[in-house]
Amino acid sequence: MRWFPAADWLKSYSRSTFTADLIAALIVTIMLIPQSLAYAMLAGVPPEVGLYASVLPLVAYALFGTSRTLSVGPVAVISLMTASAVGKAVNETGASYHEAAILLAFLSAVILLGMGLCRFGFLANFLSHPVVSGFISASGIIIALSQLKHLLGISARGDTLIDLVDSLVVNLDQANVFTLGVGVFALVFLVWCRTYLPASLVRLGCHKDLASTLTKTAPVVAIAATIGLAYGFDLADKGVAIVGAVPSGLPTITLPSFDLRLIDELWSAALLISIIGYVESISVGRTLGAKRRQRVNPDQELIGLGAANFASALSSGFPVTGGFSRSVVNFDAGAQTPAASIMTAMGIALAALFLTPVLFYLPKATLAATIIVAVMSLVDLGLLKRAWNYSKRDGLALAGTIAVTLIAGVEAGVVTGVSLSIFLHLYHTSKPHVAIVGEVPGTQHFRNINRHHVITEPTICSIRVDESLYFPNAAYLEDVVYAQVAKNAELKHVILMCSAINVIDLSALEALEMINDRLGELGIGLHLSEVKGPVMDALERSHLLEGLNGQVYLSQHEAFVQLQPQKAPH
Amino acid sequence: MRWFPAADWLKSYSRSTFTADLIAALIVTIMLIPQSLAYAMLAGVPPEVGLYASVLPLVAYALFGTSRTLSVGPVAVISLMTASAVGKAVNETGASYHEAAILLAFLSAVILLGMGLCRFGFLANFLSHPVVSGFISASGIIIALSQLKHLLGISARGDTLIDLVDSLVVNLDQANVFTLGVGVFALVFLVWCRTYLPASLVRLGCHKDLASTLTKTAPVVAIAATIGLAYGFDLADKGVAIVGAVPSGLPTITLPSFDLRLIDELWSAALLISIIGYVESISVGRTLGAKRRQRVNPDQELIGLGAANFASALSSGFPVTGGFSRSVVNFDAGAQTPAASIMTAMGIALAALFLTPVLFYLPKATLAATIIVAVMSLVDLGLLKRAWNYSKRDGLALAGTIAVTLIAGVEAGVVTGVSLSIFLHLYHTSKPHVAIVGEVPGTQHFRNINRHHVITEPTICSIRVDESLYFPNAAYLEDVVYAQVAKNAELKHVILMCSAINVIDLSALEALEMINDRLGELGIGLHLSEVKGPVMDALERSHLLEGLNGQVYLSQHEAFVQLQPQKAPH
Repeated sequence: MRWFPAADWLKSYSRSTFTADLIAALIVTIMLIPQSLAYAMLAGVPPEVGLYASVLPLVAYALFGTSRTLSVGPVAVISLMTASAVGKAVNETGASYHEAAILLAFLSAVILLGMGLCRFGFLANFLSHPVVSGFISASGIIIALSQLKHLLGISARGDTLIDLVDSLVVNLDQANVFTLGVGVFALVFLVWCRTYLPASLVRLGCHKDLASTLTKTAPVVAIAATIGLAYGFDLADKGVAIVGAVPSGLPTITLPSFDLRLIDELWSAALLISIIGYVESISVGRTLGAKRRQRVNPDQELIGLGAANFASALSSGFPVTGGFSRSVVNFDAGAQTPAASIMTAMGIALAALFLTPVLFYLPKATLAATIIVAVMSLVDLGLLKRAWNYSKRDGLALAGTIAVTLIAGVEAGVVTGVSLSIFLHLYHTSKPHVAIVGEVPGTQHFRNINRHHVITEPTICSIRVDESLYFPNAAYLEDVVYAQVAKNAELKHVILMCSAINVIDLSALEALEMINDRLGELGIGLHLSEVKGPVMDALERSHLLEGLNGQVYLSQHEAFVQLQPQKAPH
Repeated sequence: MRWFPAADWLKSYSRSTFTADLIAALIVTIMLIPQSLAYAMLAGVPPEVGLYASVLPLVAYALFGTSRTLSVGPVAVISLMTASAVGKAVNETGASYHEAAILLAFLSAVILLGMGLCRFGFLANFLSHPVVSGFISASGIIIALSQLKHLLGISARGDTLIDLVDSLVVNLDQANVFTLGVGVFALVFLVWCRTYLPASLVRLGCHKDLASTLTKTAPVVAIAATIGLAYGFDLADKGVAIVGAVPSGLPTITLPSFDLRLIDELWSAALLISIIGYVESISVGRTLGAKRRQRVNPDQELIGLGAANFASALSSGFPVTGGFSRSVVNFDAGAQTPAASIMTAMGIALAALFLTPVLFYLPKATLAATIIVAVMSLVDLGLLKRAWNYSKRDGLALAGTIAVTLIAGVEAGVVTGVSLSIFLHLYHTSKPHVAIVGEVPGTQHFRNINRHHVITEPTICSIRVDESLYFPNAAYLEDVVYAQVAKNAELKHVILMCSAINVIDLSALEALEMINDRLGELGIGLHLSEVKGPVMDALERSHLLEGLNGQVYLSQHEAFVQLQPQKAPH
């Protein structure tokens, strides 16, 4: 069903599926409670808001999304972008921080739903893998740095590498040793769990899957332990920042307050958050879907995420999307349908109702350690070398995205990354690879004379341009052909082998007409071979073929045979 | 010589070349005097500034440019863009209008020289033919409309179609009948000369070339006649706006005044003016060069135009570039070398010294008529239909450029045009044409099964993707392959025929690895054929080929033959 994909899985829902979903929901709930609190802190909103954003949005996505196992809620990169956007907008307008975050979720919902209705899902494809990966790596570094202040117990602010490091260094003398102690304890514990715990548990006879699942509960253990420490040793009195009173209960459903100035400040950030969130979410959805032969529908995913953000805005939450780590846990724990997410939402709702008093003594340093460990696994600087080795363009796009994100912030980073990858591609196509080709002996196949041992003929020049002919390379094409003509005085025929030409646009058509005229004046024929169907259809609507001083051949072989001078009889 | 191309033609300069250049210079000078005054009026600077901008810039381009016959100076579109940019900047900063125009020329010189030194000439290729043509047509309409106020003798202002029409209609009641009389007289005369005079002169026994040249002097005749009318009937007293006192003499050479706030306001306009001016100029240079087998060097042209604008700024002028009509006149009049431009510059300098008193009674309506007739020949709305018929994308880019230029002004028009043409191309490549191919009987050539009668084999699916594989279509590729696999239960081999694949980027490489894994699980081989040299070089630096569950074949024919099931013996 186009508008209500949940109908697909609801009609075949069985008791065994329910059991599998319930187990997954329990595991995910335990993992999500600390994560929701931590990402709320990262986004700059009160901790309970993290829980709010993990209730209704999950239900909304479960009903309108197409991935069976994607888990939607607060995620690291989107929380960072929220903090950056809301921070700026609040400075400009003096609005309340939490109100602005809610409005941001609402704007994001409007954008996502609008894009979904317009079927703009294809836009996500314009974020190349290096750009997304570079952006996430650089964001991870910024997020980790932004959390160091909580680990040190100092105040620091900034959206960029330089600002953050600068403000950390300036305030370093205010560091609190107890805070640092708690933070380092949590950090070391979490890193140890992530690195060594699974193997240790397996050695103790634990099943591999169970070991992996138990490891995921490490943040809850860290939280429980540091709550105990903070309570037992009265660390709050020693200067350790704690979460403090978190209101119990669930949010009332209200519309955000619409402030036009605030909307004006937030909408461009909302657009970027929507696109980045969508790309992150659909990448996860596709990856998990591929493992179980389930497909996600790009346009309906926009609707699903739009509904989730709408639900988040109505329940006083902040922007949400499908997250990698939470979805993987959901998938690995055996979730079969989105019902698992609905049950997870119930679990979080129960936590919001009854668990919040326990969180009073939770040190913020513990949450910071949770975030740091989570985001450092997103940082993949090794890709820089792999991408550069594979292709300089991919390497440059990746390096540019990382550098600009670190130096100028997340928004500039994405925009630069997308522009750079598009520009590098267009630049490459503006000076395309051109091969002069000859026939591979014993075949009818034509290859580059510089790479293969091939048969050529001095009166014929066969040029294969390895690119569609369009405006960025229209002038270059002329240069290429004239250079060949100038090199060879015996030339009688130029054959343009069009096997790699997928489009000839109007600018290139004019260039071809000019080449045709020029070659005509020199008494040289211009022939085309292997013109593809769609290109031929377009050419037939132009005047090029009427005036062509040459022929169009089905294959390069046919052209080469027909245009060879008659062998003189002995 | 790289930095001083004038050395090329200077060393072989002869008496006969001199004579030819001198005649051309005389004709061009007569044509340029009214044109320079008119475009100064269009740009909003005093009339003598138009003459200044037609002296030193011509000499500078003659020494540093590479086209033999290009004529550089004030041109219509650049004058309009100058008026629009300077108008805004003056409103914002309260600077003097003329000072701002000089600074704009200086900034444009810096940008052009900088681009030339960085060899950024290729950037011009990103303005497709439809975008340039649409921009010039729409600018022509706006210019013509902006001159109607001079024809009517009313005040009106605006940079867009709606503003102009609106302000013309509001002030229509102030129209002056004498002004209108002079304007309509000049307009009808000029249109008549352009349309009927050459044929009439030929019928009277005049040679065709001479008739064409005489026609070009029509604006001078119109100017002389209306000066006579204005003087004889004392039209200035009857409310006809006249040029008035024009200072005689040549400008002193001075640096522009550098006002940082003004620079901040002007630099983005200067960038656009530089690029548009460059594109217009190089198009003209290339067209004329092609007729005489002379080549222009794109990077050196940036230096030449930069030098011309630098010279314009130093002599109190405004932005200049190579113009179409003036260059064509120069070419047709027989100019052989840039010496013709140097002599033209001398002619204009003499006019600035001695001719200005004569211009006192020149009605502004005559200049407006000159401009209207000149720009209307630039408007080519017929291209809209031709472009749309040839390709929807070219048609859309053209229509978008025209619409936005008319509605939102010249700067928005260019930016929209370039973005739109790039976006439409990328969108097209994001869902590329895909053909399932089979062998054309009796050949080794493979074509689309839907267009040709070809041989196929049920266990083999040969897919030809007609596009480079890169990030916008990486996800689409997966869909295409999986759809073929789903359709055919007998399938044993998928051959990706790579003849149209000019690049495989990192995003597409990941998609191919995913496809390879997925087909491997299904027991289907993934083979590549006709992989081009540069693509193969890149793939060899990746891990795809190691893990490929199939082969790479030189030709599609070879792949098809080798992968066919052995025919069972009878």
